[in-house]
Order: sequence, then structure tokens, then C-alpha cells
Amino acid sequence: MNIHALRTSERALHALELAGRIEAGALTAAAVLARCEQAIAAREAEIGAFAALDLPRAKKSAAASPAGPLRGLPVGVKDIFDTADFPTEYGSSIYAGHRPRTDAALVSQIRRAGGLLLGKTVTTEFAHMAPGKTRNPRNPQHTPGGSSSGSAAAVAAGMVPIAIGSQTGGSVIRPAAFCGVAGFKPSYQLLPTVGMKCFSWQLDTAGLFAASVSDVAFAAAAIADRDLRVDGMTPAQPRIGVMRMHIWSEASEAMQAALEAAARAAAAAGARVEDVPLPPALEDAWRAHPLIQDYEAYRALAFEYDHHRDRIAPTLRKLLDNAAKITAERYDEARRTARRARQLLSDLLDEVDVILTPSAPGAAPRGLQTTGNPIFNRLWTLMGTPCVNVPGLADDAGLPLGVQIVGRFGRDKSALEAALFLERAIERAHA
Amino acid sequence: MNIHALRTSERALHALELAGRIEAGALTAAAVLARCEQAIAAREAEIGAFAALDLPRAKKSAAASPAGPLRGLPVGVKDIFDTADFPTEYGSSIYAGHRPRTDAALVSQIRRAGGLLLGKTVTTEFAHMAPGKTRNPRNPQHTPGGSSSGSAAAVAAGMVPIAIGSQTGGSVIRPAAFCGVAGFKPSYQLLPTVGMKCFSWQLDTAGLFAASVSDVAFAAAAIADRDLRVDGMTPAQPRIGVMRMHIWSEASEAMQAALEAAARAAAAAGARVEDVPLPPALEDAWRAHPLIQDYEAYRALAFEYDHHRDRIAPTLRKLLDNAAKITAERYDEARRTARRARQLLSDLLDEVDVILTPSAPGAAPRGLQTTGNPIFNRLWTLMGTPCVNVPGLADDAGLPLGVQIVGRFGRDKSALEAALFLERAIERAHA
Repeated sequence: MNIHALRTSERALHALELAGRIEAGALTAAAVLARCEQAIAAREAEIGAFAALDLPRAKKSAAASPAGPLRGLPVGVKDIFDTADFPTEYGSSIYAGHRPRTDAALVSQIRRAGGLLLGKTVTTEFAHMAPGKTRNPRNPQHTPGGSSSGSAAAVAAGMVPIAIGSQTGGSVIRPAAFCGVAGFKPSYQLLPTVGMKCFSWQLDTAGLFAASVSDVAFAAAAIADRDLRVDGMTPAQPRIGVMRMHIWSEASEAMQAALEAAARAAAAAGARVEDVPLPPALEDAWRAHPLIQDYEAYRALAFEYDHHRDRIAPTLRKLLDNAAKITAERYDEARRTARRARQLLSDLLDEVDVILTPSAPGAAPRGLQTTGNPIFNRLWTLMGTPCVNVPGLADDAGLPLGVQIVGRFGRDKSALEAALFLERAIERAHA
Repeated sequence: MNIHALRTSERALHALELAGRIEAGALTAAAVLARCEQAIAAREAEIGAFAALDLPRAKKSAAASPAGPLRGLPVGVKDIFDTADFPTEYGSSIYAGHRPRTDAALVSQIRRAGGLLLGKTVTTEFAHMAPGKTRNPRNPQHTPGGSSSGSAAAVAAGMVPIAIGSQTGGSVIRPAAFCGVAGFKPSYQLLPTVGMKCFSWQLDTAGLFAASVSDVAFAAAAIADRDLRVDGMTPAQPRIGVMRMHIWSEASEAMQAALEAAARAAAAAGARVEDVPLPPALEDAWRAHPLIQDYEAYRALAFEYDHHRDRIAPTLRKLLDNAAKITAERYDEARRTARRARQLLSDLLDEVDVILTPSAPGAAPRGLQTTGNPIFNRLWTLMGTPCVNVPGLADDAGLPLGVQIVGRFGRDKSALEAALFLERAIERAHA
């Protein structure tokens, strides 16, 4: 088992570079859109990243040369966010043809930043497990990961430079890893979830996909209107805690090797790298995640469950059947467990700047029946801390192997900076 | 200025008593509904509590004798919560005739508990300041308070035994105080806000109205499926901290006298009552509330602001104009202020069990131009702690004067128990 540099997709569109060239007058928004259109024409039939597309309207908008930091860059939005001018079906036949009255807050923020909504990207059913039609652009025999399947695939295939996703278990970081792009799950509430179909009000987190760490930081800065950009900087050498988790044996041989390779690359680039065991309180929180998620899903999806139970996919239906029996006492105890773990994680992040851990148990599984396993993600979703999938490594078959940087709550820029450091370290080590 | 016992409205419907009599077979859900219908026929034309009503459907549902702890009791739902079978207009002409695809989670929970949705109650525009048509049943020349105007009025007028509201500043506790009913704003997320029109994702809190403290606790227990009932218990004698706040001089003479009367009544009933000054960190948080609220409102209402700015009422429009200028740095600093204050409040609640403070600056103001001032509420909304408006006192004109019990986050039952203690103490002192 050898670890390789991920071959750069020749189609990948770098948001930062494109915005810079538009700003400099060397490129127009219409020309960028034409490139997206080309990629879509070439690959969408096979990849199936989009649930809805509107190229004619996008062209009209691009011709108007939108202002704002995104300067007319096309954006794909996961079909779990409401849009007034696109159907919004949440990956469920219950919502066939649904057209919300209003845009989700995040969609409005994209438009305010000068982004151009190109289409809605495929989500699994209610952002849970039941897969959509999307295939992995790195190898269409493999899953793109979920639940933000279409967003990760669209960025990886060069169909859009920026896409929006969401994570309740592992739905941003995992598909980013599987498709070999940068994924950013910010701190809780950095990006609003207003107008996003709720699965768990505690856990649902909006996130972003782009070609590289600098690109995803640029997109986040523009959309959130925050100081998050890391391009042009020389990232500080971080103190990195390598965390193999209690589920290390469930990571594939290739993923184990990838994590070691990433740690070695970081050390070679001057980072202080040390092993950090998973504290028992964090393992407790890892176990508490599904209980919190499922208790809330039984309430958040009450209308669908009570009125259309037979149109919910079997796995989710069974989850909700069982969730009906979770008592408030167990839910409250799980939330207390999470609170204790957050405090402990905060103490741990006094010792190291960031944590380095796998983004997924391995490369994208073959087949489209599963979107992969969120076991390496759900703890961090529950902690509400920023996570960045760092691309750059691949297995013998050329499939991406993603590792993630986990930062301190509210220190999103530091997490992105450390991720940039690691991305460059990996590039250098595997040049 | 004298303080009087609030005359009991002969029409008030006690949820707990009605449910008990239905359970015992002494009353039917249909008979309860008939009483509601009578009250509506008698007073709705004057009071205007409802934005939408469907008596024929309610009758059909009542005839089926719903099971569950609410046993077919009619419930009014603030028109800020989505309903698939009623129009949902959020108090705004932008949403004229809007019919959501789905019920809000809380609406589903009411139905799961055997509650019967009688109608949508009037909300101010987007639960902010612009008043609806509702008048105060205690004196129709006065405001019922806002933003949950219709819910408070409908309960006070005996049109429903239970109603749902929401609070972002003071929108449950204040109208409950003005209308002389019990109001309960639970801890953050005890009642889900999924499917409720968002104003501020941090602050929005769903709450309840009923005739008395036992009734509102009964309704909360049934709807949240939690151990919250306090009926039938002899409440413990609480340690009460009387907090006059830094805005004490803005409380009317009558309200100042009411708070002292409530404190005296509690002491006479055996509570340990002591004065607790407002710590400076909590005053800072009080000041931070509008900044957090407005920053989030500019994003939560982005679609309405960007597409229909001229259809937003002037006060809210101006708020949003100004909110556009709030930086992420100031917002983050305000959130840090709130976090520090929550810790300090938690320490303070080691010394006393609950805080006693005014529910509003005074009785309901005359006229319908304003819904009153939330200055005595917004700190507690930001703290996320349970608050209960305790009715029972009135001014010389017979208008209700409400005081509130504030408890510790997550200890909602204890707060309700202390509120019950106070309600009984006030009754005894003014018998």
C-alpha cells in the first residue's frame, strides 16, 4: 500500500484565481460560466451532480457582471436549502416539484456577495443516508459520499468553483474527502441554517466546497462577510495533535498510511506534531451524537413521518421508528455529555493548535448503494468546531484520501490557516 | 397607587381541569370546543385574536375524541409557525395567502399530544414591533402586548385554553403580563423552532400561554413530552432573589408596587426573599441583546429585505438598514459577552433558586400603536433561561400587572414550581 499525490483534476476551477482575474479585467463572469457549461456538457450526464440547473438565467445574470467579492462566480447549492427560483425537493419524493416562497438565508448571502446561483445539487434524502443519482467524478463506479453528494462532485468535476453543503453527521467533510476537494465545516452558526431543511437543530451545520483550502477560505470569507481568507499568507507552523480515535482499526490500511504521511509531511515542514489520544469524555460524546440527532430528527421531520411515512426510505424510516422511543431524560443526558466534552476539547486545544484525524475510514467505497460512513466526523459535528478536509493524497488506484484539520470553536481562520499549512506540506512532500 | 387581586376572568378556560374532566368522561372534546366557539362568537369581532380560524374542521376533529394528554383541547398557534392546513402570513403582506407545504415541528407535536389546532393567532409583523389588529380582552382600549398578541388575548378571552407564542425580545412574557394569563418561555430548544419564521436564530424561543401556572406547565409537559407538570404538588419554599435591574426607574409606580407586593407575599408564604443586584456582566449582556438580534435578523430576513424592502414596516426596515452595518467582529464580541453573562448567572443561581423581576415596565399601555417595551425581558431571552409570567395582580384600573420568575437553564420544572409557589402566595395575600 503506497500513498500518492492526488492527481490534480485538469478541470478543477479555482475560485480565488477566477475572482482575481475577473477583478483584474482579464476574464469575465460570462467566460467563467462558459467553462462551467463546458464541464457540465461533458460530464453531467454521467456524474449527475445537479437536481436542477438553469443555465439561461445564469447567463443573463453573468452578463450583468455582478459586483461583490464573488464577482459573478457560479455557485451550486445543495437541494436541502430553500430557493424561490428553483425547485427544492430535499431529495424526497414527498417534496416533488416543491417551490419555496423564500430563499434560505445562505442563498441570499451568496447573492449579496455577488455569487451566481447556477443550480441545486443532489442531496441524499433529507441529507440522511438514502443516496441520490450522483457518481464520483474521480471514478464513476464509486460513491461521491453524502449527504452533500452533488456539491462535492460538481466542484471536483469543474462544474462550479464553489458549492454549498451541510453536515449533521459527516456530510461535508466525507464527500469532500471522497471527491478530492477542499471541504469546510465552520463553527456552529458561522453560516446560517435558516431555510435549510432541518434534520437536527443542534447538529445541522452549513458548509462549503472548493478546489483547495485557499479557495474554500475565500468563498467562506465572501459569503459570511468575515475575515477568513488565508491566500497570500505564509501560514504559521502549527502545533498539531494527531488523533487516531478509538475507531482507528476501522480506518483502511490506506487511510492509516495517509494520516501518517500527512503527519510526517507536516513535521517535515516545521510543525510540532505529537500524538494525542482520544479522551474518554470525547468518546462518550462520540457515542451521544446519534441519540441527539435521532431525538431531534423525530421532531424535525414529524410532519413527513406522521403524514408520509411510507414515502420515507427504509433506513430513515427505521431510524425514526426507533427515535420515537428516546426519552427526554436520555436526550438531556446526551446533551450534558456533549457539554462536558466541549469543555474538555477546549482544554485540549490549549496544548495543541489543531487536531489532525482522518476525514473518513478510507477512500470512497465502490458502488452507489452507500455514501460511506461518518464515524470519523460525527464527534466534530457535535463539538461544533471548524473542520477542513485537506485534499492532496490518493491510494494506489488514484482515489482521494482526505485528512481533516479540526480547530477550536470560533477560531475558523486559524483552522483554515493550519489546513493551508498542511496542504502545502503534503504538496511539497509528494512533489 | 394600590395593588389589587386580578379579577378572574369568568371566561378563562383551565386546560388542566378540562383535560381531567374529559379523561374522567365528564366532558367531551366537542363540548370544550363549543365553549371556545361561544367565546369567539361573543368577543372575536372586538378582540381580533385570530388571523385564521377553522371551526368546522375543528368540530370534525373533536368528534373523533383525540387521544393523548391534551385529549382534544383546542390550541391557538401564533401565525409565525408554519401550518400546512392554514394560511401562514407571519403578519406581513409579503406572505399574503401563503400556505406552507409542512407543519412546524411544534404544530406536529401539538397534534401528537392530542391537541386540536383551532386557528392561527395574530402576530406582529415577523414577530417584531408593527402591531396586528388584536385588542386586550381586559380592556380593548389597550394593547394586548406583542409579538404573540393573538395568543395571549385568545387565552385571556377564553377562546382557547392553550396557545403557542414565541419570544425573541419579550414576546411571550410581556403579552402574558398585559393580558393577565400565565406565560412560559422555556429554556432554549425545549420546544423546537423548526418551521417557525426566523428573526434571530440565537434568540428565537417558542413558548406557551394558559390560564394559570399549573395549566401552562401541563400544556408544556404534554407538548414537549417531558416531566414538567406541577399540578397537585405542594411547591417547595424557594430562595427568591428580587432583581430590580438597572432600569428600575423605567418601571411604573404600579409595577414597582406590584413587585414589592409579590416579594412580600412570597416571604409571607415562607420563601427566603432577598435583594439581588444586577451584576455588571449581566447589564453588558442586556446591552448586547439588540446587536445579536439585529445582526441575525439582517440575514434571517435577507430575502424579504432584498426583494420586498418597501413592504416591510418602517421600524423594522430601519432596524435592518442599520443592521447591515454591524460587523462580524462586533457580533462575535456581543456573543462573548453573552457567554460570560450566562456563566455568571449560573453562579448567581447557586445562591438563589430563582429570580423575581417585572414582566414589563407596567400594565398594558393605552392604544394599539405600540405593543409595549421588552426591556425587562430581553436579557432573559439572551440567557436562554426559563421565564414564567405569574398573573394575579392588577392596578387601580383593573389592568393586570405581571411579574416573572426566572430559573436556571434546563431547570424548567423548578422554575414552574417556584412560579406556582408565587402564584399561590399572591392569591393568599390578596384573598
